[in-house]
Amino acid sequence: MNSIEKLTEIFSKFPGIGPRQARRFVYYLLHQNDASLRNFTDLILRLPKEVSRCLSCLRFAKTNTKNLCAICDDSNRDRSMLLVVAKDVDLENIEKTHTYNGRYFVLGNMIPLTEKASTDKARTKELQNEIRDRENEIKEIIIAMATNVEGDHTTDILKELLEPVTKKNNITVSVLGRGMSTGTELEYSDADTINNALRNRKGVV
Amino acid sequence: MNSIEKLTEIFSKFPGIGPRQARRFVYYLLHQNDASLRNFTDLILRLPKEVSRCLSCLRFAKTNTKNLCAICDDSNRDRSMLLVVAKDVDLENIEKTHTYNGRYFVLGNMIPLTEKASTDKARTKELQNEIRDRENEIKEIIIAMATNVEGDHTTDILKELLEPVTKKNNITVSVLGRGMSTGTELEYSDADTINNALRNRKGVV
Amino acid sequence: MNSIEKLTEIFSKFPGIGPRQARRFVYYLLHQNDASLRNFTDLILRLPKEVSRCLSCLRFAKTNTKNLCAICDDSNRDRSMLLVVAKDVDLENIEKTHTYNGRYFVLGNMIPLTEKASTDKARTKELQNEIRDRENEIKEIIIAMATNVEGDHTTDILKELLEPVTKKNNITVSVLGRGMSTGTELEYSDADTINNALRNRKGVV
Amino acid sequence: MNSIEKLTEIFSKFPGIGPRQARRFVYYLLHQNDASLRNFTDLILRLPKEVSRCLSCLRFAKTNTKNLCAICDDSNRDRSMLLVVAKDVDLENIEKTHTYNGRYFVLGNMIPLTEKASTDKARTKELQNEIRDRENEIKEIIIAMATNVEGDHTTDILKELLEPVTKKNNITVSVLGRGMSTGTELEYSDADTINNALRNRKGVV
Repeated sequence: MNSIEKLTEIFSKFPGIGPRQARRFVYYLLHQNDASLRNFTDLILRLPKEVSRCLSCLRFAKTNTKNLCAICDDSNRDRSMLLVVAKDVDLENIEKTHTYNGRYFVLGNMIPLTEKASTDKARTKELQNEIRDRENEIKEIIIAMATNVEGDHTTDILKELLEPVTKKNNITVSVLGRGMSTGTELEYSDADTINNALRNRKGVV
Repeated sequence: MNSIEKLTEIFSKFPGIGPRQARRFVYYLLHQNDASLRNFTDLILRLPKEVSRCLSCLRFAKTNTKNLCAICDDSNRDRSMLLVVAKDVDLENIEKTHTYNGRYFVLGNMIPLTEKASTDKARTKELQNEIRDRENEIKEIIIAMATNVEGDHTTDILKELLEPVTKKNNITVSVLGRGMSTGTELEYSDADTINNALRNRKGVV
Repeated sequence: MNSIEKLTEIFSKFPGIGPRQARRFVYYLLHQNDASLRNFTDLILRLPKEVSRCLSCLRFAKTNTKNLCAICDDSNRDRSMLLVVAKDVDLENIEKTHTYNGRYFVLGNMIPLTEKASTDKARTKELQNEIRDRENEIKEIIIAMATNVEGDHTTDILKELLEPVTKKNNITVSVLGRGMSTGTELEYSDADTINNALRNRKGVV
Repeated sequence: MNSIEKLTEIFSKFPGIGPRQARRFVYYLLHQNDASLRNFTDLILRLPKEVSRCLSCLRFAKTNTKNLCAICDDSNRDRSMLLVVAKDVDLENIEKTHTYNGRYFVLGNMIPLTEKASTDKARTKELQNEIRDRENEIKEIIIAMATNVEGDHTTDILKELLEPVTKKNNITVSVLGRGMSTGTELEYSDADTINNALRNRKGVV
């Protein structure tokens, strides 16, 4: 296998990339000059040096000397709120909305349905530790998982795992509001969404 | 223009049908026997006789001698709740979920953005009359529009138009809950949905 | 079942239509006035009277007193060429290109792979009769099936069935040219198409 | 801009990749260990060393000491046939079909419609030189461009440019066969394809 084929194989493992597009990536690289390739590979190799998991929220980010990311080290963020997401990209998408001013915890993965509380993939132990460390300042934990079977399962397991510390410290546990997402029509909404939209209806003044 | 072409033209005006599929409909009909065609056209011609707008909710349905549909004439339905939808299909989709036991009103159309309160397309006058007629029994009006610009506009106008009667009779006006619809992921959610999902978050015990 | 439901069921059997769209068709009809509905059903009922299978090509069309369609009765069409298609819509699509000036025969269906020469669905007997009737004037038969497994199978069976009459009368049997269809790129072409495009390459002056 | 953002920007320029998927690539890399990243970047940097343009066909490939790729140096390939493609991936896709045993020339790009014979992007000069160098052994040149406006334009220009050498040496110039590509139906074929399929029809025995 030559380097075109080896690189095609590596790119084929990138998320959402099949062998045909992987091959086009290799040809794309073949058309770059040496300086561009060097810049590209330098950035890749610097990545694990410049970026590391934040000690507190566990997301990948540029961290400071205390090993904290910009959000976790920002004294203007509300330390009483902890929003638990599955992935780094979820956190980024929420940040983009500029609606949330609390802190985060990145679980890494949802908890698979097959095992009750796999700690291999989802960082449930780390979450428990983080909350125990800050049990005096946290007032609310928002579990923000995808609204599908695996997300619901993860929410259930987390609620159970966190119960000792949340009960003891009187920490509110909440989940994202469910109902009609923006831009949808009743005609095409599923039964579960209509159900939630009706139960969670809101009075208007 | 022969009858194949004329029928193609008529079918082309059916919702979601282009000329190619319209033509295939005509060939489909050409393959039916006379009895099937007769049954089909009889049903079409009987439609406006057997089905009429319910006097109360204004949806198309089989109505009884009092000109009421099965829902409006059902004494087990909660007469204190009135759910306002834009279209008959919205009502049908909600009924299929078996979550709602109140009554309905079908507006016919949403209120277009260009006119403030067009009564041509949306039956706002009829809605006002219906509520005034039953102002003693109605306790809550749920305005259930699509979660888009036109739906929001319709909700605003309706709220305003109904204010005299709702204020006077202490009728609650509510809208569908907004947030994450079922089966969605945070990574792909828009800012408005995330915003609603966070604001409408719910404590879990 | 009321007439809304019955009509929904009938429309659900139209080609490419599911129950949801079928229901929207019924509501669309409910919004038409009586005159429009009457015009629509009249056209449907007149269809089998005004349109019938042409005695020669067997397509559905307005036929004259000799029971021939406009193409088969057109003395300017080249009677020495017979193009065999599977369906009426194939014939119509070819006519739209204004490239072919011969005559047609509509087989009705392709010959299914499971039976060797099913005469139930495909009108092979009628094709054989038509050719025998005109064996002195036909010089070429073009078998124009879809370029898939069932189309190839149909072509093979037809060739075999027609051999006695074509051999005897020295009639050429041909199939559509295969190769690159317009608007395609080599990168995305399948092996079979590339193979045909290479074998059928053409010298340019 | 930190290295996550810089790498996202670079990946966004990869063919077919938007900013969201580019970001997911970066997180994917963040989950790889140091050895994998090192292997990946080594392969990228070795690419321009191990792979270079073949001196004869100009495709990117592992070349030997004579600077020829495996195809151009294979004495079993038919040296009398030269197939001209636009891109490396076209050549690869044809090779996968195992139908062609001649040699290739990679033009690099099609000739844009705006300039008559841009030699900047398309290697027309190199093609002319290659043919002149081998004018005694080449018997046929197959110009294999996409079947769209730009492809047809490229074919026309190439034909014109090559005329002096092809006329003088009696070299046949051909193009890929056009017609129905595999797996298509007449009902959905465009006029140009039907036209080609009819003109290029083939007699069957």
